Amino acid sequence: MMTQTTNLISEATPTLLGRTIGHLRRIWRTPSSNTIADELQLSPELNPGDSEQLIQWMDGCLLQECNEVTARNRAVILGRSYLRLNEQGRSRFLLLLAEHYGINNEQIEDCFQLWKNAPAEERAKAGQQLRESLDPPRLRLLTQFNGLPEGVKFLVDMRAELLTLKKTYPQLAELEADLKRLLISWFDIGLLQLEQINWQSSAERLEKLIAYEAVHEIQSWDDLKNRLDSDRRCFAFFHPNMPNEPLIFVEVALVKGLANNVQTLLDEAAPLQDIQQADTAIFYSISNAQPGLAGISFGNFLIKRVVARLQQEYPHLKQFSTLSPMPGFCRWLEQQNESELEQLSGGKQWLQLKSDSDISGHMPPAEAREPLLSLACHYLSQVKGRGHLSKDPVAHFHLSNGAQIAQLNWLADSSAKGLQQSAGIMVNYLYQLPQIESRSQDYSQQGSVSLAQSLKPLLKL
Amino acid sequence: MMTQTTNLISEATPTLLGRTIGHLRRIWRTPSSNTIADELQLSPELNPGDSEQLIQWMDGCLLQECNEVTARNRAVILGRSYLRLNEQGRSRFLLLLAEHYGINNEQIEDCFQLWKNAPAEERAKAGQQLRESLDPPRLRLLTQFNGLPEGVKFLVDMRAELLTLKKTYPQLAELEADLKRLLISWFDIGLLQLEQINWQSSAERLEKLIAYEAVHEIQSWDDLKNRLDSDRRCFAFFHPNMPNEPLIFVEVALVKGLANNVQTLLDEAAPLQDIQQADTAIFYSISNAQPGLAGISFGNFLIKRVVARLQQEYPHLKQFSTLSPMPGFCRWLEQQNESELEQLSGGKQWLQLKSDSDISGHMPPAEAREPLLSLACHYLSQVKGRGHLSKDPVAHFHLSNGAQIAQLNWLADSSAKGLQQSAGIMVNYLYQLPQIESRSQDYSQQGSVSLAQSLKPLLKL
Amino acid sequence: MMTQTTNLISEATPTLLGRTIGHLRRIWRTPSSNTIADELQLSPELNPGDSEQLIQWMDGCLLQECNEVTARNRAVILGRSYLRLNEQGRSRFLLLLAEHYGINNEQIEDCFQLWKNAPAEERAKAGQQLRESLDPPRLRLLTQFNGLPEGVKFLVDMRAELLTLKKTYPQLAELEADLKRLLISWFDIGLLQLEQINWQSSAERLEKLIAYEAVHEIQSWDDLKNRLDSDRRCFAFFHPNMPNEPLIFVEVALVKGLANNVQTLLDEAAPLQDIQQADTAIFYSISNAQPGLAGISFGNFLIKRVVARLQQEYPHLKQFSTLSPMPGFCRWLEQQNESELEQLSGGKQWLQLKSDSDISGHMPPAEAREPLLSLACHYLSQVKGRGHLSKDPVAHFHLSNGAQIAQLNWLADSSAKGLQQSAGIMVNYLYQLPQIESRSQDYSQQGSVSLAQSLKPLLKL
Amino acid sequence: MMTQTTNLISEATPTLLGRTIGHLRRIWRTPSSNTIADELQLSPELNPGDSEQLIQWMDGCLLQECNEVTARNRAVILGRSYLRLNEQGRSRFLLLLAEHYGINNEQIEDCFQLWKNAPAEERAKAGQQLRESLDPPRLRLLTQFNGLPEGVKFLVDMRAELLTLKKTYPQLAELEADLKRLLISWFDIGLLQLEQINWQSSAERLEKLIAYEAVHEIQSWDDLKNRLDSDRRCFAFFHPNMPNEPLIFVEVALVKGLANNVQTLLDEAAPLQDIQQADTAIFYSISNAQPGLAGISFGNFLIKRVVARLQQEYPHLKQFSTLSPMPGFCRWLEQQNESELEQLSGGKQWLQLKSDSDISGHMPPAEAREPLLSLACHYLSQVKGRGHLSKDPVAHFHLSNGAQIAQLNWLADSSAKGLQQSAGIMVNYLYQLPQIESRSQDYSQQGSVSLAQSLKPLLKL
Repeated sequence: MMTQTTNLISEATPTLLGRTIGHLRRIWRTPSSNTIADELQLSPELNPGDSEQLIQWMDGCLLQECNEVTARNRAVILGRSYLRLNEQGRSRFLLLLAEHYGINNEQIEDCFQLWKNAPAEERAKAGQQLRESLDPPRLRLLTQFNGLPEGVKFLVDMRAELLTLKKTYPQLAELEADLKRLLISWFDIGLLQLEQINWQSSAERLEKLIAYEAVHEIQSWDDLKNRLDSDRRCFAFFHPNMPNEPLIFVEVALVKGLANNVQTLLDEAAPLQDIQQADTAIFYSISNAQPGLAGISFGNFLIKRVVARLQQEYPHLKQFSTLSPMPGFCRWLEQQNESELEQLSGGKQWLQLKSDSDISGHMPPAEAREPLLSLACHYLSQVKGRGHLSKDPVAHFHLSNGAQIAQLNWLADSSAKGLQQSAGIMVNYLYQLPQIESRSQDYSQQGSVSLAQSLKPLLKL
Repeated sequence: MMTQTTNLISEATPTLLGRTIGHLRRIWRTPSSNTIADELQLSPELNPGDSEQLIQWMDGCLLQECNEVTARNRAVILGRSYLRLNEQGRSRFLLLLAEHYGINNEQIEDCFQLWKNAPAEERAKAGQQLRESLDPPRLRLLTQFNGLPEGVKFLVDMRAELLTLKKTYPQLAELEADLKRLLISWFDIGLLQLEQINWQSSAERLEKLIAYEAVHEIQSWDDLKNRLDSDRRCFAFFHPNMPNEPLIFVEVALVKGLANNVQTLLDEAAPLQDIQQADTAIFYSISNAQPGLAGISFGNFLIKRVVARLQQEYPHLKQFSTLSPMPGFCRWLEQQNESELEQLSGGKQWLQLKSDSDISGHMPPAEAREPLLSLACHYLSQVKGRGHLSKDPVAHFHLSNGAQIAQLNWLADSSAKGLQQSAGIMVNYLYQLPQIESRSQDYSQQGSVSLAQSLKPLLKL
Repeated sequence: MMTQTTNLISEATPTLLGRTIGHLRRIWRTPSSNTIADELQLSPELNPGDSEQLIQWMDGCLLQECNEVTARNRAVILGRSYLRLNEQGRSRFLLLLAEHYGINNEQIEDCFQLWKNAPAEERAKAGQQLRESLDPPRLRLLTQFNGLPEGVKFLVDMRAELLTLKKTYPQLAELEADLKRLLISWFDIGLLQLEQINWQSSAERLEKLIAYEAVHEIQSWDDLKNRLDSDRRCFAFFHPNMPNEPLIFVEVALVKGLANNVQTLLDEAAPLQDIQQADTAIFYSISNAQPGLAGISFGNFLIKRVVARLQQEYPHLKQFSTLSPMPGFCRWLEQQNESELEQLSGGKQWLQLKSDSDISGHMPPAEAREPLLSLACHYLSQVKGRGHLSKDPVAHFHLSNGAQIAQLNWLADSSAKGLQQSAGIMVNYLYQLPQIESRSQDYSQQGSVSLAQSLKPLLKL
Repeated sequence: MMTQTTNLISEATPTLLGRTIGHLRRIWRTPSSNTIADELQLSPELNPGDSEQLIQWMDGCLLQECNEVTARNRAVILGRSYLRLNEQGRSRFLLLLAEHYGINNEQIEDCFQLWKNAPAEERAKAGQQLRESLDPPRLRLLTQFNGLPEGVKFLVDMRAELLTLKKTYPQLAELEADLKRLLISWFDIGLLQLEQINWQSSAERLEKLIAYEAVHEIQSWDDLKNRLDSDRRCFAFFHPNMPNEPLIFVEVALVKGLANNVQTLLDEAAPLQDIQQADTAIFYSISNAQPGLAGISFGNFLIKRVVARLQQEYPHLKQFSTLSPMPGFCRWLEQQNESELEQLSGGKQWLQLKSDSDISGHMPPAEAREPLLSLACHYLSQVKGRGHLSKDPVAHFHLSNGAQIAQLNWLADSSAKGLQQSAGIMVNYLYQLPQIESRSQDYSQQGSVSLAQSLKPLLKL
């Protein structure tokens, strides 16, 4: 379920990783007061001849007798060496880690036997040893990279690289899973901080928004400034050890009534709203910022925390809603055969219109309004993907969070992507705090979808 | 090795815990916008009748089908309920957690068999399941308490309470170990921040120093101000989720030459030193602040980080040294029988003096200087405790960190404790960065102690 | 009117000035990279022989051809020299400044004539020159001391010293007035910042509260912490160039109903109030912190700004009131002769009681309640000092601010000072925003005092 | 001298003022808790009919009997009314202020007579009254606008508007001068803060750099980021009451050797310099940011403060130099007649080249190098403007600061402006701290120019 979530929320482009490496190389320069005589000298592509040396070094880091300070110093030097490698070198480094320093099956079996046969008073200790045998040494090594400046971000980016590489090298999967376990414990939601981002934030933080936003791309610093104006809010989760890197962020507009068009929201020339008059908060964009945290979801917490915070700060806000795309709608529509569509409300009319003219990727004609909205309503509320869960990933995300499908908006997103994926239609998912809990459970357990009363007629033939 | 370290560095008094509970009760008030209808209603002492209800609630938190946000909300309510209990109630709560929600032996065995017999391509997944079976559900529950305000500090204090309680209830040992594992991953040294504390720090932080310092007790705010004056430095490690709670802190004096008397250092009336003239940094007090983090050592990192930082900021500093007690010296001296002592340098003279007059707990007479310094030198450098490691815990701590025994100071601590434990003698342990690494290894592996050339004559008969 | 205000609000003790000088000497050390070859070498007591050298130096600072950077560098050296002087030396320095570098009467007359006879188009320029002729050169010199670290505080303290010295040396009065003019322009209320002070503030700021509070002395850091607890507020005005020095501060308690006893408010053992239930803010102490800013009043702004801020933050607060002493009451009472007192409500009864027993400085007996409250009410609302303004300085301060005399509290301050000055009675002055403006004008223009309806019976015979 | 300085340093474009007004209108909204019943209701263009009402209001603000808090409240309402006016309305408002509320000549004469005839003991008081009679009431009124949010910036911008308007309405000159006096006292250099600006600064601050830089225009946020990279520094003076508004800022590059080409410095694609290797700080751009502070110079302080700060932070820096244009060179060259030029080193060759081809505004040919550099050297060091001071404004600025003309760089600025004004030549002015003082005096008093030994041959025929 979590992995799905991250499919839906837009991901940062991988180019940032390249930039990060350059940045880290600069700030990880060997300090002049280095107490270990010689650094590791590796060729950029990590020639096979270097592997020997590398393994010796890693052995050194993991020696039992090595004290912790020394072990960490060595790990730091290892981290610096990794950064000096080129793309090929980094792959080889990771493959080498994947091959060595994993868990030892025999040791596990031994520990298991010891545990199983341990007398009651030694069970706990034997259990602890069994646990440790399941902890690969390479994970201990990787952990220690956090001692480098911006080391946590470094590990997050290493996982991003592993997620890409493991498509080519399946043998990296376990290493990637090791790293994921580590990151799950560090990025526990209770350790994160919800922070507001605005025009007073540092340029260093703000340029990350531009880089990471992908739902409705930020075109320029002027566009960004408009999105941070006095009638807008932007919130992000941060990890205290990555203070300049948002993990996930949401953009909110404070408006009067349910917003029904995203271009209007993003129009830089539009007049500023008086937030004293606003009664509705519209969540119009939510982006995951760290590909290296894929599968570690924060989105379901973010919206609710932001709702709670806005409600406290602006008690006159009465509604909290998204303005969301239906990314899978057009694809689904195309895949249905005629006989299936004919069974659905609006299906026949749609087939008629479709055959009359080519309307894909264009602004749909006025007469398509009724049939397409009906089909969209059916798609969102009735069409299932895995089990009893909604096929549309965005719908699934908000429904599992306890939201209601509240309104469908015609000609609400006239961007190329909006027309191509959602036929220009956008959805308002409504977050009503008192019902969130029960709706979330009804959906998760039985697949029941909360649909606003006003939309139900759309489903009738 | 780690546990020993924490024996040596002074620990905070447990009274703070009581204060914290009152403080947390205040900041954890049930919010008015609570979405879950009813809180848990428990009697303060957690009567047996309440256990049923409590178990049901905990079951609810751990249900598979419960979504993560709901699960965390319930955990938070559980945490608030725990806080409202009195001491007896809290013990019962913890005992109940210890009894239930531990690991399931049968499940472990099943997982192990599945893993052992898994085909290669399913090994990783099976390994992951085996790992999870070793993770007790109660740990998942406790983790989620971090969502409460100051939740991380809450868990640290819960472990402190467990460490005390497990002396009475050994069945709490595993629960305590669970919590320790959690805290080890969160308090990894690479995630901590080294920060300077001075008179510009908040009163909230500073009052913690007064509460936690125990090597040389801070008598008053004036005493504290004197220790933070322009010729002093104080550094602490902080965890980002506990920003007002130092984990460990060290007090440093910038002086000319090796300081040889601690009362002089602490004298509020002493003139301020011109730090432009200082060539030596004296580490005269190091205190662990969090009993709940016992066994998770930061001390060996703290000194070296502070040395590095001071060196960069004040390049004219040439020496980094402690001014330390010998807490085990007098006890050891008393335990030696006469024939053994006679073999040692200074032993005969000491036996003579001792028989002549009662000198325990008093300022030792001038003629005891030579024999006692000799015996102290022998004690520190030759007397072994576990294996080849020094018997004196402070000596062990600094030697394993790579320091040298550089100087012994006569009449250096005239406090009651100083006379009683160390016969008023104090030691300078010298940290010389280029030799730290090798000295640390020599000591850890072979027990070799680095002793300044000038002290060696003291060992000769 | 301003000078009176500062008489009423408690002033800081002058000892702080001595401390400041020591502090400044430390932070004003001659920098090593000094570009001016030789500093001024003066004897600590500024022997007459040094005056010559000093005058030459000052001449150098004020030379027309000297560029501004050089002039300021020289002024800074002059400032450092001043600091190295002892008390006598500083007096002589100031006397020398007072004697030289004042305004030049002939030059003023010339400028005036030039201005008077100037053709229209040159009038403005001539006016500017006349203005400049009235600006004494020593003021230009003093201004430049602001370039020293904490230079603004230095000048404030210099004026404090002048205010004391001019009692002995009247010839310093003009120099003091010069400095006052300078400080008035810098300490314009619009340039000041209202800031909250709490337990998260720096110890450096907090120790100033302890030093400067004089209405109800702060006994210890524990007492201070109690006054900054969650049901208390403390606000101060700060000047941006004196960030660690409050100019004036007020202590507020958030309570239910009008507080009627100050010892209860200050009791550290009293239970914490739930501020969600509070409906009243009690201003129970207001202190001027800088003797050097005497006559530059901020008090009338402070209360209103704090009222506005509290009202916004805690909309459930319904009343804003002081709990104030009547510092002149007992003195006034003693000075009245019998025949006058007999005319007043309560007068006869009081004379009777007084003659029966000695009650000065003791807790007054219950039967004195009615007569003393009546006399107090008369004293506050009817007895005039200068013109039609109230004789009691505290009453005058709050009435000119637009407050109402709302309640008199019997046995409300049992401290020695409270009994001696106010017979233990305290007053609630009520600030009701809608009426503040008109009440302030009625009082200032006609001396009309706003008295609560409930108090009026006290005035009737 | 000051006014000249501001001619030389680039000024911000006036468009910002318009933006500011919009911004202020937003943040000065009438608060809901307004205690004065009715605001001023004026027509946007301030029709003549409104003047009456306005004057009444201003009278109200200045009434003697009005207490200070009320007076300031009224002034604030006046400020809000001013902001709601359009351009014409604002002119009329200012003209009205200029006409009324100035100084009163008769009152001045009276005060002068009183002062002149005052007995010694009343002289000081009479002097003070004379001073006050020279203080126009409108200045008191304007001062109180500082109570509005961002009020100080508001007054700075009002003066900027006055500086423009007084060209059309000379009668505004005195009002402008009043405001200037006020700003001079508030913007005293000792009250300003030198702060570093970098990529961690807020976007709100950074966008001001883009708007205000005019020496070498900032093309984009990428250009800006390049100028704030790790081998660059940017420093600005800030006033504490205008925390988001730099007053003046300087851009510095840390390089190896004297930089001799500005396009190279600004090239975003150029590799990052290792600042550990840098030995020279190049000041390549200095911009005044506030047109409203014209004539209040900070530039001479800024460079020296930055030099001192850089020297402390990077002790390995050995040289501090500018890379500056010669804005008046080409104009001067054109204005010389042939016979004059022939007398100068390089003059004949230049006349020859010039007659051969049209070279104005183009990259000058290689053979022009010698003659043009010679003429440039003559121009900078020998050609005088006012009195004995250099004709070139940039040269004058740096020479009066105590710098040396150290190097002339051929083809150093190939921008259109650089070719047109300076024939592409740029100058390094060298700041050598030990000589700054004496060079500055020699130049100011006798016009002696410090010219590097290596440049002197250029002057020989």
